[in-house]
Parts: sequence; C-alpha cells; structure tokens
Amino acid sequence: MSIQTRPHQGPGRKGELQARFSEIRAQSEELARGLEPEDQTVQSMPDCSPTKWHLAHVSWFFETFLLSPHLKGYETAHPQFGFLFNSYYEAAGPRHNRFERGLITRPTVSEVAAYRTHVTQAMNDLIDSADETLWEQIEPVVEIGNHHEQQHQELILMDILNLFAANPLRPAYRPWRAHEARTSGRLSFVDYPGGVFEIGHHGEGFAYDNESPRHEVLLRPFRLASRAVTNGEWLSFIEDGGYRRPDLWLADGWARVRTGEFAAPLYWEKTSSGWEAMILSGQHKIDAEAPVVHVSYYEADAYARWAGKRLPTEAEWEVAAGALPITGNFADSSYLRPLAAPDATGMPVQMFGDVWEWTQSPYTAYPGYRPEPGALGEYNGKFMSNQMVLRGGCCATPDRHVRATYRNFFYPHQRWPFAGLRLAEDA
Amino acid sequence: MSIQTRPHQGPGRKGELQARFSEIRAQSEELARGLEPEDQTVQSMPDCSPTKWHLAHVSWFFETFLLSPHLKGYETAHPQFGFLFNSYYEAAGPRHNRFERGLITRPTVSEVAAYRTHVTQAMNDLIDSADETLWEQIEPVVEIGNHHEQQHQELILMDILNLFAANPLRPAYRPWRAHEARTSGRLSFVDYPGGVFEIGHHGEGFAYDNESPRHEVLLRPFRLASRAVTNGEWLSFIEDGGYRRPDLWLADGWARVRTGEFAAPLYWEKTSSGWEAMILSGQHKIDAEAPVVHVSYYEADAYARWAGKRLPTEAEWEVAAGALPITGNFADSSYLRPLAAPDATGMPVQMFGDVWEWTQSPYTAYPGYRPEPGALGEYNGKFMSNQMVLRGGCCATPDRHVRATYRNFFYPHQRWPFAGLRLAEDA
Amino acid sequence: MSIQTRPHQGPGRKGELQARFSEIRAQSEELARGLEPEDQTVQSMPDCSPTKWHLAHVSWFFETFLLSPHLKGYETAHPQFGFLFNSYYEAAGPRHNRFERGLITRPTVSEVAAYRTHVTQAMNDLIDSADETLWEQIEPVVEIGNHHEQQHQELILMDILNLFAANPLRPAYRPWRAHEARTSGRLSFVDYPGGVFEIGHHGEGFAYDNESPRHEVLLRPFRLASRAVTNGEWLSFIEDGGYRRPDLWLADGWARVRTGEFAAPLYWEKTSSGWEAMILSGQHKIDAEAPVVHVSYYEADAYARWAGKRLPTEAEWEVAAGALPITGNFADSSYLRPLAAPDATGMPVQMFGDVWEWTQSPYTAYPGYRPEPGALGEYNGKFMSNQMVLRGGCCATPDRHVRATYRNFFYPHQRWPFAGLRLAEDA
Amino acid sequence: MSIQTRPHQGPGRKGELQARFSEIRAQSEELARGLEPEDQTVQSMPDCSPTKWHLAHVSWFFETFLLSPHLKGYETAHPQFGFLFNSYYEAAGPRHNRFERGLITRPTVSEVAAYRTHVTQAMNDLIDSADETLWEQIEPVVEIGNHHEQQHQELILMDILNLFAANPLRPAYRPWRAHEARTSGRLSFVDYPGGVFEIGHHGEGFAYDNESPRHEVLLRPFRLASRAVTNGEWLSFIEDGGYRRPDLWLADGWARVRTGEFAAPLYWEKTSSGWEAMILSGQHKIDAEAPVVHVSYYEADAYARWAGKRLPTEAEWEVAAGALPITGNFADSSYLRPLAAPDATGMPVQMFGDVWEWTQSPYTAYPGYRPEPGALGEYNGKFMSNQMVLRGGCCATPDRHVRATYRNFFYPHQRWPFAGLRLAEDA
Repeated sequence: MSIQTRPHQGPGRKGELQARFSEIRAQSEELARGLEPEDQTVQSMPDCSPTKWHLAHVSWFFETFLLSPHLKGYETAHPQFGFLFNSYYEAAGPRHNRFERGLITRPTVSEVAAYRTHVTQAMNDLIDSADETLWEQIEPVVEIGNHHEQQHQELILMDILNLFAANPLRPAYRPWRAHEARTSGRLSFVDYPGGVFEIGHHGEGFAYDNESPRHEVLLRPFRLASRAVTNGEWLSFIEDGGYRRPDLWLADGWARVRTGEFAAPLYWEKTSSGWEAMILSGQHKIDAEAPVVHVSYYEADAYARWAGKRLPTEAEWEVAAGALPITGNFADSSYLRPLAAPDATGMPVQMFGDVWEWTQSPYTAYPGYRPEPGALGEYNGKFMSNQMVLRGGCCATPDRHVRATYRNFFYPHQRWPFAGLRLAEDA
Repeated sequence: MSIQTRPHQGPGRKGELQARFSEIRAQSEELARGLEPEDQTVQSMPDCSPTKWHLAHVSWFFETFLLSPHLKGYETAHPQFGFLFNSYYEAAGPRHNRFERGLITRPTVSEVAAYRTHVTQAMNDLIDSADETLWEQIEPVVEIGNHHEQQHQELILMDILNLFAANPLRPAYRPWRAHEARTSGRLSFVDYPGGVFEIGHHGEGFAYDNESPRHEVLLRPFRLASRAVTNGEWLSFIEDGGYRRPDLWLADGWARVRTGEFAAPLYWEKTSSGWEAMILSGQHKIDAEAPVVHVSYYEADAYARWAGKRLPTEAEWEVAAGALPITGNFADSSYLRPLAAPDATGMPVQMFGDVWEWTQSPYTAYPGYRPEPGALGEYNGKFMSNQMVLRGGCCATPDRHVRATYRNFFYPHQRWPFAGLRLAEDA
Repeated sequence: MSIQTRPHQGPGRKGELQARFSEIRAQSEELARGLEPEDQTVQSMPDCSPTKWHLAHVSWFFETFLLSPHLKGYETAHPQFGFLFNSYYEAAGPRHNRFERGLITRPTVSEVAAYRTHVTQAMNDLIDSADETLWEQIEPVVEIGNHHEQQHQELILMDILNLFAANPLRPAYRPWRAHEARTSGRLSFVDYPGGVFEIGHHGEGFAYDNESPRHEVLLRPFRLASRAVTNGEWLSFIEDGGYRRPDLWLADGWARVRTGEFAAPLYWEKTSSGWEAMILSGQHKIDAEAPVVHVSYYEADAYARWAGKRLPTEAEWEVAAGALPITGNFADSSYLRPLAAPDATGMPVQMFGDVWEWTQSPYTAYPGYRPEPGALGEYNGKFMSNQMVLRGGCCATPDRHVRATYRNFFYPHQRWPFAGLRLAEDA
Repeated sequence: MSIQTRPHQGPGRKGELQARFSEIRAQSEELARGLEPEDQTVQSMPDCSPTKWHLAHVSWFFETFLLSPHLKGYETAHPQFGFLFNSYYEAAGPRHNRFERGLITRPTVSEVAAYRTHVTQAMNDLIDSADETLWEQIEPVVEIGNHHEQQHQELILMDILNLFAANPLRPAYRPWRAHEARTSGRLSFVDYPGGVFEIGHHGEGFAYDNESPRHEVLLRPFRLASRAVTNGEWLSFIEDGGYRRPDLWLADGWARVRTGEFAAPLYWEKTSSGWEAMILSGQHKIDAEAPVVHVSYYEADAYARWAGKRLPTEAEWEVAAGALPITGNFADSSYLRPLAAPDATGMPVQMFGDVWEWTQSPYTAYPGYRPEPGALGEYNGKFMSNQMVLRGGCCATPDRHVRATYRNFFYPHQRWPFAGLRLAEDA
C-alpha cells in the first residue's frame, strides 16, 4: 500500500473511514448468514479456509496491527488466537499450519462472532479516541484493514462454493436470483494504438503496494475483445478436442490434462441431460451466453491459442480499462454468478465484474517497487513468483473494492477463483 | 456373526432386544451431548470419522439391512444417504470416499438427528409389527445392529480425542472425574499350564462371526502379567533409550521411529513442567500408576523385548480370561481414561476394560471360519490381513459389549485406539 | 540360525564347507555372466537391488562377520564399502539408503569383481589358517555366509527380471531352454489326518534361526492339492471376473485392484495375439499348463476363495512336505521358469521348486524363538510383522538351498518373487 | 528458430555446416570419454537423464526430423528407439516416461555408440546427396540439430555432476585443472542510461525461435554489477543468517528453506575442515573468489534483497551484453568450474561463461512470438510458464553456443544448472 503518498484528508475523512469500517464488518457477517456452523468450520482443500477462520483472521488483522500496538489497555480475546488466526505473516510470530485450519472446531462459530464484536468495539474505541497525531499514523492501516476484509469476503464465497461442490447433495448457498434472459453480445475486437503509457497507481485513493510505483510501459498496437469468452464458446473448444490436443497447451498444463485433472472447467459435470455446473445457487444447466468461469491459466491460454488469439498483458488491460467506469456485476448485485454481457458499443464491456480475467503477465514487481517495512510488507511482495496476474474483479468481489490498477494473482493451475478470460491480438 | 447357531429364545427375547435397541440408540445421542455442531463435522485424519457420520452410519445400517428389505412402505430419509453413509460394504453399492467424510457439512447435525429419529421409529414399527417368522429372520440382524452401534460409540470417543488433540486450545470433551488415588498393584506373573484348550465362541449369546468356530488350540505353559504396563514403567523405557535402540524393534516399527513418528505414546507432550497427555478431559499430567495407552503394536512389542518378556498370544489371553468376570473400567464408568489397577490376588486384574491389550497374534481366520453370505459377510472377514488382535475392551468401550472371545483388530502402526499392553512369558 | 546346537563334525567338515564356499562364490559370478555393466548397476524399484550390489553385499557379509574380526591384518578393500554394502544390519553401523542403491555407479562392475576376489582369497586364508578353536567359532558363520549368498543369488534373478521387464525392448537374460511338452497333471486333493505334529528344524544340518525351535502344532484333518495352480486355471479366474468381484478379496488387496495395480499376474501383458508374459528368456506366450507365478498373496487368497478352497497353513505344508524328497525344478535346472507338473501318484508333486507357495500363515516367531545376539540376530527376527510365509523354493532358487522347514516371507502385496499357490481345504 | 528469415548463404555454407556437424558429434563422444558404462546409464533424479540417453536422443533428433523424412531408404537402427529417445515432442508420437529413463539398460553404451555412428553416417549421406532445393529445406534443421546437441552436451555435464555428487565416494569426472590464483575483482556497478532499446534476435546467424521477434523495450536507468557474486560473498550471506530470515525470501522459496531443502548452495557440504563443494573434479574446498554456483532463483533473489540490490531483468542484461565480446570461461577451457573474475575496467566482466545468471524475468513469449509449426514448435514455446530466464552461459556450456540474445530458462527451485547471479540496481 502506498501509505506515505496518500495526502492527509482532514477530519471528515475519519468519520467516513469509520463508517466504511462498520459497513464492511457488517457485510462479512451478512455473508455468513444462512451458513450452518458445520459449513463454516470445514476446509475443503488446502487452498481454502473455513468461513469462521476468515471471519476471525480479518479481526486478528485489526487486533495485531492496530489494537495491540495502539489501544491502551487492550486485551486480546484469547492468547492463542494470534497463533490460530495469523495467515502468513512471518514477522507476526509463529502460526498454525494452513492446511490444518479445518481441524479447529473451537473456537466455535458463535465464539468467533463474539471475538468479532470484541474487536469491532475496540476498533471503534480506538478510532474515537485517536488524536490527530495517532490518526495520521493509523489511518492507512485502518484503510488497508478494510480492504483486507473485503478480500476475505470474496474468499469466503470462493471457499464455500468449493466446499458445497464437494458435497453430493449440492447445497445452495443463496437462492437463484433471476436475471433477464440475454444473448451475449457479438464478439468483436476494439483497436488500441501503441506507444508509451503509464500504468500503476496514481497516488490518489487507496491502492495496495504492488500497484506502485506508477511507471511507463511501451505497448505495441493491439486489439482487445469486446467481452469475455462465453460458456458456449468454451463448449466449442471442448467439442473441437481442445482438451485432447497437446499442441494447444503449455507443457505444465498438458501434464494436468494427462492426469485427468483438467477436462472441463472446475465444477462442470456432464450429466445425462447435458453439461451442468455447480454455482453458489446449487447445480444448474450451463448458460451458454454467460462468461466461462473457473478455468485455470493453462486452460485460458490453450483456449486463446485454439482461437488464434492470445491473452492480453496486464498493461494492455489496464490501459484499456483506464477510461471505463468501474461498474459491473459485483457481489453486491447478488447474482453471485457471471451474467451474459450486454452489447458493446465501441468500448469493451464486462471489463469489471463477472469474471477475473487471466492476463499473460506473470506477477512481478513493478520497476522501483518497495514493499512496506514490517509485517505488512509481506502482504503482496513475497508472492511475486510463479503466479499470474488477473484483472477486473468478478461476481464475488465486493463493490468498491477493485480499480483499473488492481492486480490480483493466482497460480496458473488454480481454478477455484472466479476466473475467466478475454481474448486479445496484435493489431 | 453366528446367526444360524443361536437358538430361538421365545417372545421375551423380542422385548428385551427392543429395549436394548432403544437404550443403545439413546446412549449414542448422549455421547454427542456437549459436542458442538462444529465438533461433530470434522474428520481429523483418514482413520477417523466425524461424530455425525458415525451417528448417521449406524442408522444407515439399520435402514439398509432391516428397514429397506423388511418394512413395507419404508421410505429412506434421503436418496443420497445410502451413498454418504455406507462405510465399506461393497455389496451395498457405491459409497463416498472415506477420507472425504469431513467435507460433508450437509446434512447438518440436526438433520442427522432427525434421520436418527426417523430410523429409530421405523425400527420400532418393524419390530412391533414383525410376526414370528419375520422376527426369527431379523432378530440376529437387529442384534448385530445393536452391537455395531456400540462399536461406533467407542469410535466416536477415539475420534473426538484425536480431533481435540489437534487443537492447540486442547478442549475437554468431558470434565475430569476424580477417582481415588491408587498405587498400581505390584507386577507379578500368573502361571498357566499348557495343553489343548478350546477357544472361540461357545454358541450362546451374541458373537461376531470372526469368533467362530470354537476350536482347539495347543498351548505351552505360560505366565501372564498380573496387570497392564503402566505409564511409569513406560517412562523407564523412554529414559532407558527405548526409542533409540534398533535392536528392540521390528523393522517396520523402527522405520517409523526414524521418521520421528514414534517418540512417545500418541498424545504425550513434553512440556516445561514434565510429560503431559491429552485425554478426553483435556491435557493433564501423566499418571505414572495408570496403564499406558495409545501405543502402537510396534511400541508394545519393543517394550516387551526391552522388559525381557513377550506379548501374549490371543489364545493365551482368552484362556486366561475365560475364568474371569467381565467387569472393569468401561465407558459407562465415565472416567474415560485408564485407571491404576487394584492389587491382584491370584488372578490377573484389568483384563477387561482400561486398555485394549495388543496380542502377538495376527488377525486371521479361525480354522473352518466362514463369513456370512451377502454384505454382512464383509463385516469382519475381509480385514484379515496385516492387522493384529487386541483383547479385553477399554475405558471407551460400552459396558456389555465385549466378552472373553471378542477379537478386536488394528493395524500395528495405529495408535488412536485406547490400546496398551500386558506382558507374558514362557513358563 | 541355531548356531550353538549344531554338533561339531570333525576335520572333514572343514574341507567340505570350504569347497561349498568356493562353489557358491563361483555360482554367483556365473549368474552375472552375460549381464552388461549397465544391467548390473540399475535398481528398477526400491524392493530390488542392482546385481553388482548383491555381488558386493554378500562379500561385505563375509568381511564384516568373519574377516574383520578374525583374520589378522585383514584390510578392507575400501573404507566406504562397509557403508555402501550393508543391507539392513543396524548393529553393523550406518548404511546407504536402500532406495538409492541404483545411484552408485562406482565402484564399477569390474571393481566389484576385484572386491569379490579380494574377499574370496582372504576367506580361504582364514579358513586355511584357522586352528580348531577358531574353526569351531567361525564354522557356523561361514555356513550362514554361504546360505546368505545363495539367497542373494535368487534375488539377482528376481531383480534382473524386474529390470528387464521395465524395458520395452524386453531383453532376454538367458536363452529359452526347451522342455518336453507336458500337460499338467489333473488336479486332485490328497488327504492328511489331524493331530499333534512337530514342525521346525530338527537340529541337524543347517537352518536359519526362524525355523526353530521345533515345536508341536495341532492340525485338523486337511486336504492338499496335488499340484500348484496353473496359468490356464488363472485365466479362468480372470475370465470369470476374478479381478472385478470385491467379495473375493481381502480389503487391502481390493484397494490395489481398484487403483489398477492388480489386474493380472505381474509381467503379464495382453497383446493382440493373446496373453504373454515376460520371463528370464524374454517375452513369451503364456503356457497354460505351467504354474502361475508372480502373484501377490492377495491374489492367491482371492483365487482360493473363488475356487471354493483356501490356502494351506505353513504347518500343513511342512507336515505334508516332510515325507517328500527335496527335488524339483530349481535354478540349477537352467529353465528359470516354472514347468508343468508331472502326474501325481498319491503324494503331491511340485512341493519343492517351480514356484514359492503362499501360505495363509503370517510370518511370526515360533514359540520360544530367540534370535541370535549381535548383528546376525537381525537376519530374520526383525521382519516378523506384516509378512506372509511362503514355502518350497522356486525355479530361481539354488539347488540345495531349501528344505521342508524353510520359511520364506514377503509382504502380501509383493509380486516380484517367483510366487504361486497350491490349494488346500478342510477334510 | 527463425528458420524462414535466415538468408541463403551459398554453397560454402553447406561444407561449413557439415564440418560443424562432425565437430559437434565428436565433442559429444569426447564428453563420454572416461565415463564407465555404469556412469552413463543411471538417472540420478527425474530432472536428469543418463549420458547414453542424451547421446541417443540427439541422434534420434537428426533421425526424426531429417533422416526419416528426407533420406531415401533410410532405416532406423531399431523400431523402438523412437519411443525410447523422444524427449518431449508430443507431435512426434508416444514416448517413454522421463523419470524411467534410468531403467533402460539396453541398448547398452556400446549399442548407443553404434547408433550414433549409424546416424552420423546417414547424415553425411543426406548432406552430401542433397540438391540445392533439398538443402535449402534442411539446412535450418541441420543447424538446429547442431545447437540441440550442444545443449545436451551441457546437460550431460550437469547430470554427471548430479550423479557423482550422490555417490559417497565422490568420484571425479575430470582431473582438476589448475588456474592461476586470482583475487576476484572488486565489486563495482556500471551505469546504463534508460530509454527505448531493441532486444531479441537480429535475423543474422542462428537463434532459437524464443529469441524472436526483435522488439523494443523501455528501460529505466540502471546499474549492473561488474562481476558475479562470489562464494566468499555468499558465505557472508550464510553467516548473516540469510537462510534464517523469512523477510528476505519469496514465499515459495521460504517454504523450501523450512523443509531443509535450501540451506546452502547445492553440492556444498560443511565438513570438519570447513565448507567444501562437489564439482566435476571431485570434492574440493570452496574457493571464496570464484562465483557462487548451483543456487536457485529463490536463493539468488534472497541474496539480492539481503545485499540491498535486485536481480537484473533480461532486457537490462541483454542491452549491457550487446556491446561485449562473447568470450569467457566456457566448457572448452576445460576448467569445468567457475573461475574468479578478472578486474573489470569500465565494462562488466564475466557476462559470458562461468555461471548462468538468474534474471528477475519470467520466461514468456516476446511480443509477436510465433512458434514453428509441427513438432519443432515444441522446442521452446510450450515451456513458457513458471520458469525464469537465465543469461550468458557457463563453464559447462560449449563454446560458440550462446550469444547476447540467448534465453536459457529453468524453474526457480532448480539448482543443478550451473547458475549464479549478478546484482543490479536502479540508477
């Protein structure tokens, strides 16, 4: 996060941020509504975490980086919670094994709820009582805490889907919310000129440290697809032998095809009545018009090769997105699934929301990047190897969380994010 | 089970068995009291199962082997439960993977409770409405269903301890129940003559099929320890380098010592204030007078070699136990931990209850053994390789479940059963 | 080995044993004839060892247990050979990892040959120079060294077959040696009475320690098949769905069937022209009349269940074998494959040679068994868990190596031994 | 490879290329000199291959891409060699498992030598008999075949070192060749201006396809270290706790530190007399002045962070190298180990030879990259994920193999290449 570069914004800022804090805390609790204690406890695979772990961990974050150092007389809810709910901050002390998070049945869901209340109240005390000097110091950490909790809101949805998809009963997390039937817009390509462009965070508003520094990049003329690739298009890829042709694949991806790990997008199932997919509203027939989702980078890359195109770079994506409003099908729309794109008129649509879009860019440091000192410096920088950048947010991302410069990242084999793709080509 | 050989026992038998059924069903539910839904859902390792899975599986057993074939108009609670709650019966259809039992958060704990009620009521209907012909047919299956549920009652306790021991908070399942302080009796050896003896089930009362047929065995004179090996004695073994001397160990056991898997009994922890162990009442100091528990066959065998003795054979154990009353520290005593032995006066003590005793006998078929036809034939016979016989029941075994001929069996590396040992030697 | 109990046998014994030593050393070298240095170096799986490792290890055995302690001024060929060529003797110091034996390209095959010559000469010096006192002390160790080397001769053949079977070129170790075409004898069963019998080593001639002490066993009347199960019979098992019916299998075996590990005997391949098998003379069509070989215990057990029979116990086998001459198709016959049985006339045939016969007996200590003190005590005793006894020797066993009391043992899943089966049933 | 773009170069070119072919074939055979058949057969880990596999595979390459399609009447040496010696070309048919290459003892080393002779002669026949039309077609494939064989020459050295390092006898592949004692030059940094530069292959001379197309990149001013990091500097990193401070490490690298996989460069061993390292001339004391080698990308990155610097990008490296002569300590110098750098006078030294230098650039496609059609298109493109670019060649690289645009690539955890690092920083 570019803590130092953010201008101080006066007393109004404090109330605004505190309101945002309260709102986000409440949103997390709303996400857990309807989940049984059983659902909130289990870890379906090492990449996932239990809901109640997420709910506790984001509270631990506020406790560790704000309450313990800054709120006089603050007592933690339990001396072991620091050990249990630290995710990956080496500098914040030893921690419980990630893959054993699902073994921890105590504290229970209701004890975690009490822990949340404890932390929320103390945070309000801290903000209320902070004088101007302290406020200047803690404001950026409060802000990052808010954004951090939003990230875990999306993870909760990803992880619950993964858990429910492992259950032969195929439970629904939320009822199906209907949307007007829509034919996805015709696929066209939008032209962009080459040249030297700036990408990265401007210095206004919040951003993570990995979005900085803003810097120049050299682009060649390119064309970007008007919308994301759809399920219907993906079915053509399958039917054309896309998963059987090694020439389309990166070697590391093909190895997973050969073991049977990749044969269709994650959560797809071929039933006697056709392809279905597990979504947050249970198992449903594939919607051919909606964007394909839950594909790995390898699959996205193979699809692009099959289509005679390529994936965009993150710089191309950002330049194209820079002129667009940050609106789209985010989690707050309550569909919790990607929707068919509206027709594009000139500019690309669906850049924000619906599905995270795999880019062809490995996740690396921007030139001149410096992580924050201390434990918060572990937020982003130490993951800069072996992962690929995704852009734009998805149907499970909280509203007001992403921006054009936002860099998400996952390993190229991971499929449980709401990840899809948009094609590009050289102009 | 020796279904065919059990004599018909008249109408009183029906009421008695139905009462026993009700009692055992209630005991299972009592075991789950105080466990949160979270606790009942998680599977701490592949050998273990969630409490709610146990509670559902024993109901599935009654449903599959009694209600579906015999109760007219019976409808199963859910068409998928047969898939989810079949343990290992190949002949009863496909089933969910054992190691994924912990992923199934639905049905919830309360839905499983409803399933239990559904099955219990239907079972009562079946028993009530059975005419004499049907009753003769189903009686042995009702009885095996009762005993089967009791076996899972012990597994619930084993599995909850394993789960809670994985939690750094070290939760207690039941409060500590005090017992009078007692010094374990002096270790002595009781002499038994050699000769030809009969072992195996007599044909009266219930027994599993693996206890039959009764047959002759040839024993040489032997001596059996008056009581089980204690924690204090085990500490001497540790301090004498028992876990560092390869000459004491079977090769397959030593391989596990070398990887660090075996360095003390399972659940022992060396703290700054000495050895402690996790038990069903939380973590406590080791009681030097109580029997050692949660050791593998390899450890038991190494200890015996260190002590200059050997483990008894199952035939020796059974002959010695044949003359003893089946009383001891079983689960119904509510201690849920092994207790120091009373003084032995002539006969060995602690043969029943406290700890299952590893014998040196591999678990194999008795001469002439024939498993039942059909799915129930999978109950015991197919496990007759690579496992060792344990005898006598333990502090987690329901009262009235074991008998002198009862053959329990586990793999030699498994330590989560309440297993200890008693020494023997040639006379 | 019952070293202490063997009576001293006078000066003729010394010459005889030395001649035997020379003969066995030469046989080992003859086995390596025709193997390229490449063939002698590779380890095809962790259970196997390179030929040159076997050739060196048996020399290390003489060096460690005889030359170093007893031959004045003896210098080992290389200070690291003790580390490289110790197999599993914990008491003889640290050793190289078993599964990394195939990484050791130096010493080369010719350096190992030189090491053998060095040891052979020193052994002759030792024997020649031993006075009566020393000879009494070392004689039993010389004898066990001879038998030990013979065991490794069989392992060389097992391991070379495993290696060559992994090569798509299917090399032949030895040319096919024709045998008169023969129809396997009709399968009949020979009756044996029950009663108390003695089994185990008599105290005369050489035996390993695990064959002692001789002791009484109680047998029930039984019947033993006149010959081993043939390939033709095994094909009937396959065609009848033997590998698809879980009711025939032990659970631990069925788990391996489900992963595809067991679908036919090891080294069998279904080609467009029918079933073929890789043998020491390359790949050949299956001979329906010859005994099936390279099956696991699980498969043997499943076959017996399919056939409505059972496997014999080791005691039954030994009692039956006690009256038979120790002749058969051993390695010295040079066929190096099992041959169709001659007709049985009264007594069972093929008890010795052709294929090791899986028994239903787990490999455990005889009552009163005591391993030798010191490193040689590790020879047998520490393997007495999880393995099954096989009896009778095979077509790869050196002549004059087995006897009626000889107990071979392997894990129930292992298939690279020349192991088959003979049926039995209760009388 | 930019096959199409290379201008035709007249008849002299043919003789030159044929001479080069002969020279390179002979160099491969020279590399195997002194290796025993045993050494040439074993595969020490899945990343490595046996020497004889390399020698056969490069011949298979000529056979598959030149002789079979173009030499009339050509007969392959053995119909199975195509299966055994295909490395990873999916389009060239099924192939033997990479990790089982070490099981193939036949063809023997001498049979492989005969295969090489067979292919070399046929290649000479093909080149001799090619008319102008055919020559134009095959010339680029002959050239890539030459370069391909050179790559495997380096792999032979890497793999033999890995094999010999696994042998407790620590064999030497080549005797130590002394070099004048030299103090590594003082570490300084050379300034480079920013701006738009071209990188990638110019279109003259040979290059692999992954070096094209030449394209513009935007660089910021930077500084490049005058020489590679030395062993002495690495020892300071170790002594300063470099392997114990998580803040220095990428998360994926730290995970390997925690398991103990990374604690010093590969092949280093701390003995009672200090740090030693296994090299191609056996085990020797660490030379503090020579460049560190056999470190992973993670280690190189952690070192740079510890030093307050960073690794260069591949574009920075290439721009800096563009003006330098391609001379250095390559394999032909026969040292087969990195040597202390001479003093730098203005320009960086050691850019070519000694050690491959890890860059911070993930291995991805250059903008506009198009792999060749057909099997040769698998040469480079399909590996463009999860790997990092290394530049400059090393002491095991054949002379005349690398160039300023040459892109080598390995996974960031791999340490068996001769890989070291050079520091960089923003100007």
